[in-house]
Amino acid sequence: MAPIKNGRVIFNEIPTGYPVPGKTTVYDESETIDLDIVTLNGGILVKILALAVDPYLRRKMIDPKIPSFFPPWGVGQVLDNNGVGVVLRSEDPAYKVGSHVRGHFPFQQYVVLHDPSQVGTHVLENKGNLPWSVHLGVLGMPGRTAHHGWSEFSHFKKGDVVFVTAASGPVGATVVQIAKAEGLKVIASAGSDEKVEFVKSIGADVAFNYKTTKTREVLEKEGFINIYWDNVGGESLEAALEFAAQKAHFIICGNISGYNTPDPYHVKNLQQLVWREITFHGFLIVSLLAKYQEEFDRTFPARVASGEIKYKEHIVRGLENAGQGLVDVLTGKNFGKCVLVVAAE
Amino acid sequence: MAPIKNGRVIFNEIPTGYPVPGKTTVYDESETIDLDIVTLNGGILVKILALAVDPYLRRKMIDPKIPSFFPPWGVGQVLDNNGVGVVLRSEDPAYKVGSHVRGHFPFQQYVVLHDPSQVGTHVLENKGNLPWSVHLGVLGMPGRTAHHGWSEFSHFKKGDVVFVTAASGPVGATVVQIAKAEGLKVIASAGSDEKVEFVKSIGADVAFNYKTTKTREVLEKEGFINIYWDNVGGESLEAALEFAAQKAHFIICGNISGYNTPDPYHVKNLQQLVWREITFHGFLIVSLLAKYQEEFDRTFPARVASGEIKYKEHIVRGLENAGQGLVDVLTGKNFGKCVLVVAAE
Repeated sequence: MAPIKNGRVIFNEIPTGYPVPGKTTVYDESETIDLDIVTLNGGILVKILALAVDPYLRRKMIDPKIPSFFPPWGVGQVLDNNGVGVVLRSEDPAYKVGSHVRGHFPFQQYVVLHDPSQVGTHVLENKGNLPWSVHLGVLGMPGRTAHHGWSEFSHFKKGDVVFVTAASGPVGATVVQIAKAEGLKVIASAGSDEKVEFVKSIGADVAFNYKTTKTREVLEKEGFINIYWDNVGGESLEAALEFAAQKAHFIICGNISGYNTPDPYHVKNLQQLVWREITFHGFLIVSLLAKYQEEFDRTFPARVASGEIKYKEHIVRGLENAGQGLVDVLTGKNFGKCVLVVAAE
Repeated sequence: MAPIKNGRVIFNEIPTGYPVPGKTTVYDESETIDLDIVTLNGGILVKILALAVDPYLRRKMIDPKIPSFFPPWGVGQVLDNNGVGVVLRSEDPAYKVGSHVRGHFPFQQYVVLHDPSQVGTHVLENKGNLPWSVHLGVLGMPGRTAHHGWSEFSHFKKGDVVFVTAASGPVGATVVQIAKAEGLKVIASAGSDEKVEFVKSIGADVAFNYKTTKTREVLEKEGFINIYWDNVGGESLEAALEFAAQKAHFIICGNISGYNTPDPYHVKNLQQLVWREITFHGFLIVSLLAKYQEEFDRTFPARVASGEIKYKEHIVRGLENAGQGLVDVLTGKNFGKCVLVVAAE
């Protein structure tokens, strides 16, 4: 077979605000690959089927001189993130041809992984016969973030009131359902009336559109809150501080509202931390995987397969639309987990 | 004996910025008391010797409509706080005449406590022959705040770097010495060169005047920090977030920099909570007393009496100067625990 193009998405320029497709990132078809003869060196050849598009990727688009937990992409580098693919060829007995794998992949059509286990590639089972993309969402990083973060930091007890922001997103929606399954009262915010309806449909006791209803007015009526799941920071965090119960736990999972602007909203009432004896738990999922992944893998796929835990996906098709997918998740245009579909099986 | 005056300090007006002595608080001598015949109803008559003056008292000077952990003083109410006194008369066998007591007292010369134990009054021992005022400072609320907060939240381990603000104050200085006793590296800030010298003399490895040296420049050189003891908030907290080690613990004890201005400095990098996996522990000492006071009372007085744990006091004399004492602690004019001496024995 002759070489074929191996399309890819390249980081092209550090943005100041929101990334601009075609400018911040460009789709490039200059590379080719010969699937039959490309050298594997004991590794595997993967056809990438789908890639996750997450808000945190914006964090990798910063000036590399700024200290950051996530190593920034250099200009000219191919984007990378969690993905799902199918093994086309293999020289590693742990990965059979035709099996599906999840791992950390570049944003391109085909990839050779010389040492697949080193980059976290593992073979997926699919007992519940769910779409492979769920392994990027509710059974992937976002679902694990919700489950592991809740397990480690919520300290929930009977009667607690929970507030979840970005509650139609893949993390938030999972948190809402975990909290409801524990019998707690859940207040949830989302960014459109359609999203609010979905959040109600998965069990939130109170759901509102934060663009048309003031968070502080809802919390004043429905709070005080014992647990706050913070995906957004800014004004929502400020309102949560104002209506926090004594000894509340704030699980600080993200700060989407501050990612894309040089002048984000700054919280003005941090002194509530002291008066209300609040704990802020900042966390990254990587630190909790070892402790919770066994329990998650044992229990969560069945809860999803049975329909107990519901999820939404926002499908973007084609690597050439990767930049738009990122804008979608940063502006809240997505409704559910943003999955970039790279290829059919 | 004829009635004598019972001078007292009254909350007179809600301030907008710093309280103004003579305006926010006034000294009043209109009340009298007859020490021989005043009715005790089974309680005790206490001559107040000294009262603590603490930054948190500013929090009780706010509009009572603002929800607050500390019930605000009403206009016309007598100020109150921890104090030390001597029992002049007693109808309660638990409190002998002549014994010294610590409790929550009004800012006045004499007080009748009908149910002394209910307001936390307890008889002081003084094995180390220390001045009674230490029971308001290093052996009182500030020393307990340092000891209990550190014990509960620092999660210290060998090799940790600690940053302490307001490090010449009664809480900060005690934290510095506790951390040094554990063999940790301590960076400390204070508000004058004289205070910096004291902080060095009690063991801080690095001490600087935050008014003449930028906190972030010191932390950039001496950090990253694993434990941050925050008494001040604002720019110091922002610098600490910038130079926090992964999984740092921030013990949020106070926010002095924000108490007295309607437009305080707001932290602009809370997103570091996520990327650095930081925990913020907001706390009030009342919640930790039950867990730690036995250990404190067993160990700490001897450490103070032996000179191992050092302390400073900022003495203000006379109830008529209470307002100035409060301004002193809010502006950092105090050097050590501010003690208002009400009377000699």
